[in-house]
Amino acid sequence: MTKKKLSSKTHKNKKSKLHRKTGKAPGTVTYMGKREGAASRVTIINYNSSDYEVHKADSVEAAIKHQKPAMLQWVDVVGISDEKFVENLGTHYGLGALVLEDAVNTQQRPKIDEYENYIFGVFQMLYISDDNELVAEHVALALVKNGVLVFQELEDDVFEGVRERIKNKAGRIRNRNSDYLFFALLDAIVDNYFVVLEHLNTRIEALEEEVYENPRQEVAHKIQELKKDVLKVRRWIFPVKELLSRLIDSESELINKDTKMFLRDALDHSIEINESLQIYREMSMSLMEMYMSNMSNKMNEVMKVLTIMASIFIPLTFIAGVYGMNFDNIPELHWEYGYFIVWGIMIMIFIIMAIYFKRKNWL
Amino acid sequence: MTKKKLSSKTHKNKKSKLHRKTGKAPGTVTYMGKREGAASRVTIINYNSSDYEVHKADSVEAAIKHQKPAMLQWVDVVGISDEKFVENLGTHYGLGALVLEDAVNTQQRPKIDEYENYIFGVFQMLYISDDNELVAEHVALALVKNGVLVFQELEDDVFEGVRERIKNKAGRIRNRNSDYLFFALLDAIVDNYFVVLEHLNTRIEALEEEVYENPRQEVAHKIQELKKDVLKVRRWIFPVKELLSRLIDSESELINKDTKMFLRDALDHSIEINESLQIYREMSMSLMEMYMSNMSNKMNEVMKVLTIMASIFIPLTFIAGVYGMNFDNIPELHWEYGYFIVWGIMIMIFIIMAIYFKRKNWL
Amino acid sequence: MTKKKLSSKTHKNKKSKLHRKTGKAPGTVTYMGKREGAASRVTIINYNSSDYEVHKADSVEAAIKHQKPAMLQWVDVVGISDEKFVENLGTHYGLGALVLEDAVNTQQRPKIDEYENYIFGVFQMLYISDDNELVAEHVALALVKNGVLVFQELEDDVFEGVRERIKNKAGRIRNRNSDYLFFALLDAIVDNYFVVLEHLNTRIEALEEEVYENPRQEVAHKIQELKKDVLKVRRWIFPVKELLSRLIDSESELINKDTKMFLRDALDHSIEINESLQIYREMSMSLMEMYMSNMSNKMNEVMKVLTIMASIFIPLTFIAGVYGMNFDNIPELHWEYGYFIVWGIMIMIFIIMAIYFKRKNWL
Amino acid sequence: MTKKKLSSKTHKNKKSKLHRKTGKAPGTVTYMGKREGAASRVTIINYNSSDYEVHKADSVEAAIKHQKPAMLQWVDVVGISDEKFVENLGTHYGLGALVLEDAVNTQQRPKIDEYENYIFGVFQMLYISDDNELVAEHVALALVKNGVLVFQELEDDVFEGVRERIKNKAGRIRNRNSDYLFFALLDAIVDNYFVVLEHLNTRIEALEEEVYENPRQEVAHKIQELKKDVLKVRRWIFPVKELLSRLIDSESELINKDTKMFLRDALDHSIEINESLQIYREMSMSLMEMYMSNMSNKMNEVMKVLTIMASIFIPLTFIAGVYGMNFDNIPELHWEYGYFIVWGIMIMIFIIMAIYFKRKNWL
Amino acid sequence: MTKKKLSSKTHKNKKSKLHRKTGKAPGTVTYMGKREGAASRVTIINYNSSDYEVHKADSVEAAIKHQKPAMLQWVDVVGISDEKFVENLGTHYGLGALVLEDAVNTQQRPKIDEYENYIFGVFQMLYISDDNELVAEHVALALVKNGVLVFQELEDDVFEGVRERIKNKAGRIRNRNSDYLFFALLDAIVDNYFVVLEHLNTRIEALEEEVYENPRQEVAHKIQELKKDVLKVRRWIFPVKELLSRLIDSESELINKDTKMFLRDALDHSIEINESLQIYREMSMSLMEMYMSNMSNKMNEVMKVLTIMASIFIPLTFIAGVYGMNFDNIPELHWEYGYFIVWGIMIMIFIIMAIYFKRKNWL
Ligand SMILES: [Mg+2]
Ligand SMILES: [Mg+2]
Ligand SMILES: [Mg+2]
Ligand SMILES: [Mg+2]
Ligand SMILES: [Mg+2]
Ligand SMILES: [Mg+2]
Ligand SMILES: [Mg+2]
Ligand SMILES: [Mg+2]
Ligand SMILES: [Mg+2]
Ligand SMILES: [Mg+2]
Ligand SMILES: [Mg+2]
Ligand SMILES: [Mg+2]
Ligand SMILES: [Mg+2]
Ligand SMILES: [Mg+2]
Ligand SMILES: [Mg+2]
Ligand SMILES: [Mg+2]
Ligand SMILES: [Mg+2]
Ligand SMILES: [Mg+2]
Ligand SMILES: [Mg+2]
Ligand SMILES: [Mg+2]
Ligand SMILES: [Mg+2]
Ligand SMILES: [Mg+2]
Ligand SMILES: [Mg+2]
Ligand SMILES: [Mg+2]
Ligand SMILES: [Mg+2]
Ligand SMILES: [Mg+2]
Ligand SMILES: [Mg+2]
Ligand SMILES: [Mg+2]
Ligand SMILES: [Mg+2]
Ligand SMILES: [Mg+2]
Ligand SMILES: [Mg+2]
Repeated sequence: MTKKKLSSKTHKNKKSKLHRKTGKAPGTVTYMGKREGAASRVTIINYNSSDYEVHKADSVEAAIKHQKPAMLQWVDVVGISDEKFVENLGTHYGLGALVLEDAVNTQQRPKIDEYENYIFGVFQMLYISDDNELVAEHVALALVKNGVLVFQELEDDVFEGVRERIKNKAGRIRNRNSDYLFFALLDAIVDNYFVVLEHLNTRIEALEEEVYENPRQEVAHKIQELKKDVLKVRRWIFPVKELLSRLIDSESELINKDTKMFLRDALDHSIEINESLQIYREMSMSLMEMYMSNMSNKMNEVMKVLTIMASIFIPLTFIAGVYGMNFDNIPELHWEYGYFIVWGIMIMIFIIMAIYFKRKNWL
Repeated sequence: MTKKKLSSKTHKNKKSKLHRKTGKAPGTVTYMGKREGAASRVTIINYNSSDYEVHKADSVEAAIKHQKPAMLQWVDVVGISDEKFVENLGTHYGLGALVLEDAVNTQQRPKIDEYENYIFGVFQMLYISDDNELVAEHVALALVKNGVLVFQELEDDVFEGVRERIKNKAGRIRNRNSDYLFFALLDAIVDNYFVVLEHLNTRIEALEEEVYENPRQEVAHKIQELKKDVLKVRRWIFPVKELLSRLIDSESELINKDTKMFLRDALDHSIEINESLQIYREMSMSLMEMYMSNMSNKMNEVMKVLTIMASIFIPLTFIAGVYGMNFDNIPELHWEYGYFIVWGIMIMIFIIMAIYFKRKNWL
Repeated sequence: MTKKKLSSKTHKNKKSKLHRKTGKAPGTVTYMGKREGAASRVTIINYNSSDYEVHKADSVEAAIKHQKPAMLQWVDVVGISDEKFVENLGTHYGLGALVLEDAVNTQQRPKIDEYENYIFGVFQMLYISDDNELVAEHVALALVKNGVLVFQELEDDVFEGVRERIKNKAGRIRNRNSDYLFFALLDAIVDNYFVVLEHLNTRIEALEEEVYENPRQEVAHKIQELKKDVLKVRRWIFPVKELLSRLIDSESELINKDTKMFLRDALDHSIEINESLQIYREMSMSLMEMYMSNMSNKMNEVMKVLTIMASIFIPLTFIAGVYGMNFDNIPELHWEYGYFIVWGIMIMIFIIMAIYFKRKNWL
Repeated sequence: MTKKKLSSKTHKNKKSKLHRKTGKAPGTVTYMGKREGAASRVTIINYNSSDYEVHKADSVEAAIKHQKPAMLQWVDVVGISDEKFVENLGTHYGLGALVLEDAVNTQQRPKIDEYENYIFGVFQMLYISDDNELVAEHVALALVKNGVLVFQELEDDVFEGVRERIKNKAGRIRNRNSDYLFFALLDAIVDNYFVVLEHLNTRIEALEEEVYENPRQEVAHKIQELKKDVLKVRRWIFPVKELLSRLIDSESELINKDTKMFLRDALDHSIEINESLQIYREMSMSLMEMYMSNMSNKMNEVMKVLTIMASIFIPLTFIAGVYGMNFDNIPELHWEYGYFIVWGIMIMIFIIMAIYFKRKNWL
Repeated sequence: MTKKKLSSKTHKNKKSKLHRKTGKAPGTVTYMGKREGAASRVTIINYNSSDYEVHKADSVEAAIKHQKPAMLQWVDVVGISDEKFVENLGTHYGLGALVLEDAVNTQQRPKIDEYENYIFGVFQMLYISDDNELVAEHVALALVKNGVLVFQELEDDVFEGVRERIKNKAGRIRNRNSDYLFFALLDAIVDNYFVVLEHLNTRIEALEEEVYENPRQEVAHKIQELKKDVLKVRRWIFPVKELLSRLIDSESELINKDTKMFLRDALDHSIEINESLQIYREMSMSLMEMYMSNMSNKMNEVMKVLTIMASIFIPLTFIAGVYGMNFDNIPELHWEYGYFIVWGIMIMIFIIMAIYFKRKNWL
């Protein structure tokens, strides 16, 4: 499996990956992910306002021959560990070496770079896998004159809605240019970030309950895991608003003015998502504080039990000890009701102590 | 009820709501609130310096026919779950699809966007409901050439003062343009944010007292709730000052220069509110610290009681134990006043210990 | 009394005050302070380089008739709860409705606004009252062509030095324009902020001592009060440096170039004061940390006493218990020196334990 | 050894070093490192697209005579404690006194300065030494018209990959100008910063495990060491992104436009590294929090053991004490099954207490 | 003594000093330091590339007559409590009243102000006194056309190196203009800030050791003192980088272009110093955390000792108590080896408990 699960221990793998590039010349296309050896497959969707066709291809040559001048083309490459495949296909569409290096670099932070003939972006897609887990998948998008290239690691993605709309002529997409397709894909990515919000929210709420009801050590552990995940997710999502905002201000001829209005809407959402992440961050920090305060409470309770038990019985035991002494001359021992009087005294002490602790609200 | 109460557990609902939009084309008008199925009703106030009329309408057509060229028009739509209604009415007044999407999106963060023919804003109205609870209600305002459109979820709002002033020809409102009406509504929203300040202040003061007098676990819980509410409210109110400030710098022809002077006054207030929120935030963090310090104090007190009781009686019990031993040859046991001497010694030890703890300020 | 004392519980009053404005039209002059019903009195100082006269007036008409074309005029209004009075006087000098609203709004945050014919500022004066308490008093200043208007709540103020200098022809003030008078008043306000620094510094030092010598719960309470006061004072003083700096950059014809040099000096001071406040803020946060650490120390000490007492006597009591058992056959009991041997053992254990705790530095 | 190991106690040495410059005129070339007395050796690589030659030299004169007009020259000086050597060589290539001062100042923070005829930069190289330790080594780079000068302290460096590429005609390097060589060296330095990330990541993961499994005092100590190292490393790496970004915006004629594209790629990486460092910083702070929470947990556990033991046996001991009293008249003592009844009662108490603690989840 | 020692309780004096200015006209030259009544003495160094002379003067007149048109002049005033002296001398060199006020105001924060004919700066010199203590001394510098004026409180300063270089014709100083002298003095001040770094570093290291080895309450106290000193020192040093940077951007004719290159070098250092201070600040905060964590550790250890002692002996004491009961019918008491069996049982319990605690790692 090449999906990155949040909260999984991916660090060990990361190490060796980081080394893969050290010492190489810049522009060397080097796959950094975990799904090596898998073949790349291409799905090509050609469309314009009237026509629509879908093609599959297993080689660069097969893919290239489906290009049609009068149609927009969405080239969707699944599987990017075959570095040659990506390099050849990308070069055919005019992408530079540094760009193709980033397209397969699954460690690349989110970015959008404008070039003379294309616009290139790298993001993390976040979605729920079939076995109900949050997945982060590296995706690279390139907007060229007559279409969009997508490089992704896995079959699954967040673009199903876009495919439906193209197929069903829903919305504006069939009547617009490649820049609108590019936007629609970006929008799908951003819209799916709400999935992380939900995921984090669910975890926070569950932990909140656990903190109050059963603050064991595992809870603290989970809170720290949550904090780390919020940090990681923030790192993927945080740059997006800046990138969109720069794209909106861009003067590239590849992007039409009215597509920018839609981009502004996506920007809106990415700002909102970042604000929510910020709040989740503060909430997860509060969780830890709450955990510590509940720990203190529990300790207090433990100590109260000890103090009450000890404080009540220690004086009583002392009295019993006194009348257990073996002095020849202890007058009380010979009183007829000495024993009962001592019991009375002990019961009185018990009651007085109980009242004292009651008053202190410890009982 | 569709009112959002602060501090209520609205997260579960939010989840499903966030999903409502995922996969849809941008510009699809989708109601995101909780009051689905309720009909939209429109109240239209037409006025100029001499005339004033109020109309009610249940359909878009009925609403539209009350439009009069020589009068300013305040179109107040209550109930926005009927997406078609909002879309039709909005389109009649020239509002775009993305704008109408935001008008009914109760999750939209505060915003003001300028367009060529209108200015559109989304806010959260905060007010006290009839059953004395703080309510947050989504509201969207659109300033068009000859009037203002308001989209709100519920009958209640914060605009009663503005309606009175229009009706009673109070202040400047009847002699001014639609931009002044737009400002007056904004001003009413901002003025009512002071209500949150009061609400938060009351809670902080109550918690401060509880922290000192009875720092139980529930208090820590309430402090965390307070912190979360301050975070949420800040998120609604924080953007407002930036928005107003941009509106003041706007070059839109829809806003007159002297209305900007009034906007500056509202900006003033929104800055003040944000500063107060910042202070409340720091105060609520201090509350938690105070709670923890009071917990420590209490623990200290518990430990002192235990230590005093144990330290006094343990040596005494030891002495009693010694003279409870059964050695054949324990001379003291046969002294005539042995028992009384031992009592004397024990009382002395008691007194010495008491003085020791007194000196340590533990008693 | 209408003076605001720092640290007093003014929140309850504030609530009702905030509501006074909600729903009113902007520009409605509404007094927000606590000294309602007191009459306004005006003191007018007319001066130029050669002449000097002081007048008192109880009505707007009486005040106005003392205006003289060839002299600068300092109009000092004490008592601003009479909203009509302030409105009439202000309107005579050309001040607008929004400005006069702020002049009597004791809740207004510090501000300086420039208008075509005047410059208007609101501040908090901070000074020591006759009964030796720190007082915060709302003051509004308006620089007009031929003079300065001052609106203050109470008789006391920080301007005595300026009055002396005018009267005694000290310094430059008699030879300069109204902008220099405006500056001199501002400067007096800023100079008096050092009073707060002293006040806070004294409290911090006293608390520092208390934290080390007697860290009771009240100390934590006082530290929190201190933190709140630093927050509040910062809110009053923080905006001043920004305001002065904007005034220095202003292009208003009301302010001469060489007065700006003096304003720069006042700006210098306000920056310094803010830096000190920032340090006091960090110091008050450190105080709480120190308090917590001292609490921990005390707890540690308490626990050590308990542990030492218990650890020494529990084994001894056990030994005594053993020889208090009633078995028929306990050989040691019949040894001639059994009792004394046991005492020896017990004393040895005592000494060993004492050495052990000494080595651990617990004694 | 002159290598700086992270986490080593280098402060004592630093002191005396800082003093070496105080009082000297600026521009006095003063070596600040620890490897005094070692001779400087120069390795010269001359290359162009067709030719390639390597020379070694021990004196400035020997080094200079290898300069060839038609070839690019990489002058690599190892050992910079011989101040005269560096000064003479640098002056030959036109470097100024202040620049040469920085070249040998091992305390210099990262910087890139542009001059008319050259660009000069100082960095910290980070790499793993042969004995598997992270090493930080001061390096200075100067880009001149026909080559690059490198001043480093030690034989080891991070440039082996660049040397290979030059030698093997790999990548573009042999066909480009001196600015590309300068970039390639910068890129090698930045690429190797990922080594620190790995190093820190390994330590964080090890500490995470230790915190959960064995939170001894040493762990807290190690966490603090980690935090300090993150701070130090951040200080070396943080400026790099700003420096690269300024270099990209530079208008120096020494840097070609297409080299800037490569610099942008290095900038990308340096941003990523900084973000990771930020996350490591927050993670190391979380570690300490986690440590404290685990300490609290452990304390809680300790207290529970004590409380359970004491609470169960103290009442039982009391009962035993009661029937150890020597009153003449204690009826129970003479019951036939008195002893067994008391045992029964004690066992019952034991069971009740056990159930009580079980219910409280303390067992 | 008028030296300010770091960490001394200077606040009480500061109070009265702050009051000295309140109410005075701006520009009133008022000495704010502690060395009142001391005479001012002037040392004049005249020099150019060929000549060099030193003069001492006790009066303003004596000082003035040493001015020579063809030479640069360094006028060094020691002792600034004689306000008239400073005012007369300063006025002779064309300094304004506000500037002279700042020259003797020992409370002035660091600043550099440019005027038409001079540049004026105030700083804190930091150096080690003869009795080995860190001293902070107020110093004011004025760069005029043909020289530099220095106003300092005490004989000692950080300029000895500059005097030597002038006297010995070392470096460039004798061949340059007054701006280079001004720079050289600034540079000497900045270079000496490294002294504070050392001082703070030494304290941090000492405290680190104390925290681990002997975390007594005094250590927490010292950590807080350290934090306060870092705050204070930062306040003196922090503005310097901003000031230097503005000076470099200045367009004043008093500063030559190549002197700016040297200023840039000083700027470099001041940035470095600020970064170090920032790290020291975080390290001192970590120290407190470490102290708290060590306190917790110690507490844990104390509790473990108590728990082990109590848990082992309480059950044993209970058993002894049982066989100390006086029931007529306790069969075990009459067994021949009853006593020895009980001892066996008690030893077994002891061993089991010891193993239990060993396993828990408490022993
Ligand atoms: Mg994780
Ligand atoms: Mg590389
Ligand atoms: Mg990369
Ligand atoms: Mg995929
Ligand atoms: Mg939208
Ligand atoms: Mg969207
Ligand atoms: Mg809540
Ligand atoms: Mg969408
Ligand atoms: Mg939206
Ligand atoms: Mg409503
Ligand atoms: Mg106002
Ligand atoms: Mg308002
Ligand atoms: Mg905290
Ligand atoms: Mg209003
Ligand atoms: Mg107001
Ligand atoms: Mg007053
Ligand atoms: Mg000044
Ligand atoms: Mg002043
Ligand atoms: Mg803290
Ligand atoms: Mg120097
Ligand atoms: Mg340096
Ligand atoms: Mg090396
Ligand atoms: Mg790249
Ligand atoms: Mg690279
Ligand atoms: Mg913390
Ligand atoms: Mg101090
Ligand atoms: Mg003054
Ligand atoms: Mg000053
Ligand atoms: Mg001196
Ligand atoms: Mg220097
Ligand atoms: Mg330098």
